[in-house]
Amino acid sequence: MTGGNPDLARTLASLSTSLAADALRKHGADRLVMRGVAPLYPVAGAVAGPARTLRFLPSRQDIAAPHGGSVRMRLIDAVTPGDVLVFDAMRNTGGPVFGDMVALAARRNGAVAAVTDGMMRDVAGIAEVGLPVFGAGVCPAPGPTAAMPWESDVPIQCGGVLVLPGDWILADAEAVMVIPGALLPVVVEQSAAATQEEVFCRKLIERGHSLAEVFPLPAALRPLYERYLRDGQLPSEAEVRDRA
Amino acid sequence: MTGGNPDLARTLASLSTSLAADALRKHGADRLVMRGVAPLYPVAGAVAGPARTLRFLPSRQDIAAPHGGSVRMRLIDAVTPGDVLVFDAMRNTGGPVFGDMVALAARRNGAVAAVTDGMMRDVAGIAEVGLPVFGAGVCPAPGPTAAMPWESDVPIQCGGVLVLPGDWILADAEAVMVIPGALLPVVVEQSAAATQEEVFCRKLIERGHSLAEVFPLPAALRPLYERYLRDGQLPSEAEVRDRA
Amino acid sequence: MTGGNPDLARTLASLSTSLAADALRKHGADRLVMRGVAPLYPVAGAVAGPARTLRFLPSRQDIAAPHGGSVRMRLIDAVTPGDVLVFDAMRNTGGPVFGDMVALAARRNGAVAAVTDGMMRDVAGIAEVGLPVFGAGVCPAPGPTAAMPWESDVPIQCGGVLVLPGDWILADAEAVMVIPGALLPVVVEQSAAATQEEVFCRKLIERGHSLAEVFPLPAALRPLYERYLRDGQLPSEAEVRDRA
Amino acid sequence: MTGGNPDLARTLASLSTSLAADALRKHGADRLVMRGVAPLYPVAGAVAGPARTLRFLPSRQDIAAPHGGSVRMRLIDAVTPGDVLVFDAMRNTGGPVFGDMVALAARRNGAVAAVTDGMMRDVAGIAEVGLPVFGAGVCPAPGPTAAMPWESDVPIQCGGVLVLPGDWILADAEAVMVIPGALLPVVVEQSAAATQEEVFCRKLIERGHSLAEVFPLPAALRPLYERYLRDGQLPSEAEVRDRA
Amino acid sequence: MTGGNPDLARTLASLSTSLAADALRKHGADRLVMRGVAPLYPVAGAVAGPARTLRFLPSRQDIAAPHGGSVRMRLIDAVTPGDVLVFDAMRNTGGPVFGDMVALAARRNGAVAAVTDGMMRDVAGIAEVGLPVFGAGVCPAPGPTAAMPWESDVPIQCGGVLVLPGDWILADAEAVMVIPGALLPVVVEQSAAATQEEVFCRKLIERGHSLAEVFPLPAALRPLYERYLRDGQLPSEAEVRDRA
Amino acid sequence: MTGGNPDLARTLASLSTSLAADALRKHGADRLVMRGVAPLYPVAGAVAGPARTLRFLPSRQDIAAPHGGSVRMRLIDAVTPGDVLVFDAMRNTGGPVFGDMVALAARRNGAVAAVTDGMMRDVAGIAEVGLPVFGAGVCPAPGPTAAMPWESDVPIQCGGVLVLPGDWILADAEAVMVIPGALLPVVVEQSAAATQEEVFCRKLIERGHSLAEVFPLPAALRPLYERYLRDGQLPSEAEVRDRA
Repeated sequence: MTGGNPDLARTLASLSTSLAADALRKHGADRLVMRGVAPLYPVAGAVAGPARTLRFLPSRQDIAAPHGGSVRMRLIDAVTPGDVLVFDAMRNTGGPVFGDMVALAARRNGAVAAVTDGMMRDVAGIAEVGLPVFGAGVCPAPGPTAAMPWESDVPIQCGGVLVLPGDWILADAEAVMVIPGALLPVVVEQSAAATQEEVFCRKLIERGHSLAEVFPLPAALRPLYERYLRDGQLPSEAEVRDRA
Repeated sequence: MTGGNPDLARTLASLSTSLAADALRKHGADRLVMRGVAPLYPVAGAVAGPARTLRFLPSRQDIAAPHGGSVRMRLIDAVTPGDVLVFDAMRNTGGPVFGDMVALAARRNGAVAAVTDGMMRDVAGIAEVGLPVFGAGVCPAPGPTAAMPWESDVPIQCGGVLVLPGDWILADAEAVMVIPGALLPVVVEQSAAATQEEVFCRKLIERGHSLAEVFPLPAALRPLYERYLRDGQLPSEAEVRDRA
Repeated sequence: MTGGNPDLARTLASLSTSLAADALRKHGADRLVMRGVAPLYPVAGAVAGPARTLRFLPSRQDIAAPHGGSVRMRLIDAVTPGDVLVFDAMRNTGGPVFGDMVALAARRNGAVAAVTDGMMRDVAGIAEVGLPVFGAGVCPAPGPTAAMPWESDVPIQCGGVLVLPGDWILADAEAVMVIPGALLPVVVEQSAAATQEEVFCRKLIERGHSLAEVFPLPAALRPLYERYLRDGQLPSEAEVRDRA
Repeated sequence: MTGGNPDLARTLASLSTSLAADALRKHGADRLVMRGVAPLYPVAGAVAGPARTLRFLPSRQDIAAPHGGSVRMRLIDAVTPGDVLVFDAMRNTGGPVFGDMVALAARRNGAVAAVTDGMMRDVAGIAEVGLPVFGAGVCPAPGPTAAMPWESDVPIQCGGVLVLPGDWILADAEAVMVIPGALLPVVVEQSAAATQEEVFCRKLIERGHSLAEVFPLPAALRPLYERYLRDGQLPSEAEVRDRA
Repeated sequence: MTGGNPDLARTLASLSTSLAADALRKHGADRLVMRGVAPLYPVAGAVAGPARTLRFLPSRQDIAAPHGGSVRMRLIDAVTPGDVLVFDAMRNTGGPVFGDMVALAARRNGAVAAVTDGMMRDVAGIAEVGLPVFGAGVCPAPGPTAAMPWESDVPIQCGGVLVLPGDWILADAEAVMVIPGALLPVVVEQSAAATQEEVFCRKLIERGHSLAEVFPLPAALRPLYERYLRDGQLPSEAEVRDRA
Repeated sequence: MTGGNPDLARTLASLSTSLAADALRKHGADRLVMRGVAPLYPVAGAVAGPARTLRFLPSRQDIAAPHGGSVRMRLIDAVTPGDVLVFDAMRNTGGPVFGDMVALAARRNGAVAAVTDGMMRDVAGIAEVGLPVFGAGVCPAPGPTAAMPWESDVPIQCGGVLVLPGDWILADAEAVMVIPGALLPVVVEQSAAATQEEVFCRKLIERGHSLAEVFPLPAALRPLYERYLRDGQLPSEAEVRDRA
């Protein structure tokens, strides 16, 4: 349950959630994009890493938080480099579940992002720490209906998506999504292929071809695309038009 | 973790959620009323019983539900007379988590109500079965974003309230709320007292006194109220006005 | 600022909010229907009366409610027969602003309805009292974000509509609306006329005419309608068809 | 594009949207249940019929409604017995698109229901007419942002579902859904089978079997179920338990 | 149905939606500002052009999109310089209707903006292309409830506003609105006048006059304003105060 | 009711709403953070000042705004340096209550911010003026359901919080909140102390201590923290670990 795969993290982070979602859909997996979770300060590119999960439950005046409320702190102290923190706040927007001090410790331990379907506080302070954060919004202080950390590294929901400890998380300006471990190779491979295909189409469009001719890439153009993959040369306008 | 206290259930069910909430607030407990949970067909009076909890998590194409999805069925089969089923559907309204066949089995085993912050189906059929149900709404079939039963008799949230297995649930036309075990005696006692006090005030209002004179019961009238408790006789108009 | 016009109240209550809203629109008044305000238990027909207004403001731990919180009680005690209570709860759904004891006193004093864009409690008890109530919903007890009564018989908003003390309120199963005093005669007269015209059209439709022929009543049929108003006789099918 | 199949309508109306939705899901069709559309007064059982569609567009001060605004009236006049009116109001809740006079004419012409994802008015009047109606809510009069009827018997959306003229509509207390023509036989047949299977399971549950033993019907019990279909005799308790 | 009026586009784009909305309201046109449509990445100034419309309908498993789903692509290929794409996504937020490849082709063909009341994807890619886009939000991939392009260059709604092919669209950081063709000269002229008047008032405020004295410009100051229009000279403080 | 305390304003503006909210909660005041109110263009740091309040009510065709609608303008003209304008727009998002010309006059008179739970217009123009503004959103022009200024310097609600004239307002990128006058010294003092304590903890975390050891600051470390306050020297790692 530790991060520890910097190459994979780098590769995934070179993709976008759009490309990854496309690849996953082709394998019948379309329940992986969180709803109501967005970057809380502008983020450049994407971040990726395995999920360290934390489940919150509503607080109640007669029930003490487990372990004196220290479950969250212990999880942060157990973060290993590359981890992505994922907090199930039950979509509660009544108070923050993450702030700048906790972000500092998480960052120091190597966390690459923190994600929640609840609120965060002191996002200016978090931005100084430099930890990318994704959430439902920002509020300065717990309101009267707060949440308490309940258990860590267990299956949770976040933004309506099932997250298991160790699932990979991919997050960019557009979305936060889960990538099931078994589908990681597929996502990496297909997304890379899709990127190349998009570059090819883009060049043809920029040169003046219509969408009808070149996008989505028609079967008739696939041999020309494969030639381009081999030798890097765009087909001529005539070649494309002959086959469209 | 079984029902088994019919006297207590009857006593609680003679109260209303309004009275119980008042009593609990006086003891500093005000996070116990579920949000977004209402009767799905008209219910007469109140029902009460200990909670049998069930936690749902979002389904995902690559993850099988635990125990072949049988967690819900097993919980229903383990219901004992007097139990209230409480399902944490994560406020997901994409598909039902309870229907008429399951209601039939629950009812046969003695369940007195079923509660969820998600959807139910076939409520006409449930009404025939005669099991009072409380939920976020009704929909005929799972949409594409469904939930799967994950574990039973564990701490959950429902409608934004923490519910522990064995907590008592009180539900009426107005609300569904949790009554912590330790506060059960207090709620019963204070609610009964409040009911009597309300009856006393009501009679005075009906006889023509103003709210300013008699409601909420002023300290000066308390001796007259206590006399009424002893001998059942309303004070005279003059007695009330003299002290107002 | 007292009710005191039972004839007018009866006449208005024989209309519907649909008819009144139509009449008011013809006079350029279309901002009079409250949003998010509905009957809290089934109501038969319509009720009407002059508004007694009450303004709430959010409570705050460091600010005491004016007059020891007694503004609401004093207003209830000052109700005169025929009044409609209208409470500006600022669309706050965090806690109730009206309950059964207050309803009892209001009813005894002659109130004909209570309206708010907030919550009420103990609606079963209110229904027993027999006071028609219209609101945003029902909840058993004040949550942590409550409201306090601030001042009475002042201009307020309710459900997004301006309500001045003494404005008439018309409420039925469909809506709650304000009828400005100056437009009362117009509403009464036009609604009555519209009702008669609808009856005329309805009879023609029931006899088999198409909507295109008879609804909304075409100018060419107006002489036949006026004849009907005089002698109560429906035109023959041929008469209608000749003019359509 | 006319109703005209009373047998099919009766058969469908003996089902429920729950059963139909189950049958359709088994054929990969799960985008057929409208969102935000519910009965506007209590409806007994289900209604079914082919869709007569009407598309609204937002009104604008500089654009006249087509055909002098008569598109809706003409559609009503063209209703044939058994039709279900379906109005695409673009989820606009600013004003009603259907009322009691129009309902009267529709009913007289044989319409069996009217459905919209917008508002209706004078629902008390509609209830008197006896036409079952399903919509997003009730409001007495057009607000300032009204809609105008644009074209009829064309493809529309309603409640987020594609509706083609002639698609069958099934509506009950629980939901309004579309049944594509090609799937009508499948729905009828499978729903009937499902009903029988549910009756069988229900009887076993009522006799004391657990859900684990009998619901959803396990493959091992299928021969007993088939025997029951042939001879109407429930298997003995021992027979069921032997195979569970 | 082509763009082709660069002068008008430039003039309109020098205005703001605030000024244009003011001018249109003076002519009784106040249903022209889209709701729930905002820039998806920061946009400098305003863009304007004639609308090329596209209507989406909900997809359904049993219905193929018209023309093999190519309606959107064909519209993009038919874009002429200056056009603004406007997509009626029925406020569906379940999946994107516009992305970076399509944006590239649209931009190359001369589109100046794309507008929808639905979602877009790959907005980072769209920003690189440089096409200003306005929508309801961003999501990486179609969810299970997608939309299909149905027909182009037809009347649609977008954000609750009627848009006819050829209507002009004005969009800035604040809003997206429709400007009916017949009102284009009025908007241009009045907005220009309003701008000058605001500049005049602003200078007086900056010099120290109160709002009561100078804004909105009182009739008594109009001669001084007209003199300023002729000779560019601000009236003296004394001149203004004498007339206030 | 004038600003006039630049030192206090500067001190408060050096804090954050997070710190202030923490300090206030410790004194039992947790209903002070507005809901649905956010900066309308990016704001650096915090602003603070005493509230000048303005109450809006819904407009109605038959009721003229008080004083010819000039209440807002008069309030702006009465602004004194340091004031924060707070407008109760009743959460109405149908039209703007503040724009660039009014912002210019407010700024010139020394206002330091404007806050509303409604909409503003011409925020680009407001940003040029340089007045920080906080609101529910931006829209270019009044829609059909507008609001009118009713009275100024009276108790109001804004974003669900009670605001009295003269209450201090603290606003930053994260939130807008009220600071009751009586609690100003407490907030200033405790927030300053909390800042220092956070700096101490932060340094320890950066040096490698776990959250469990140092945050929230355990009682055992308090003597070391107090020594640090006196002499500015961090305790050694060993000193900290010995006491953890």
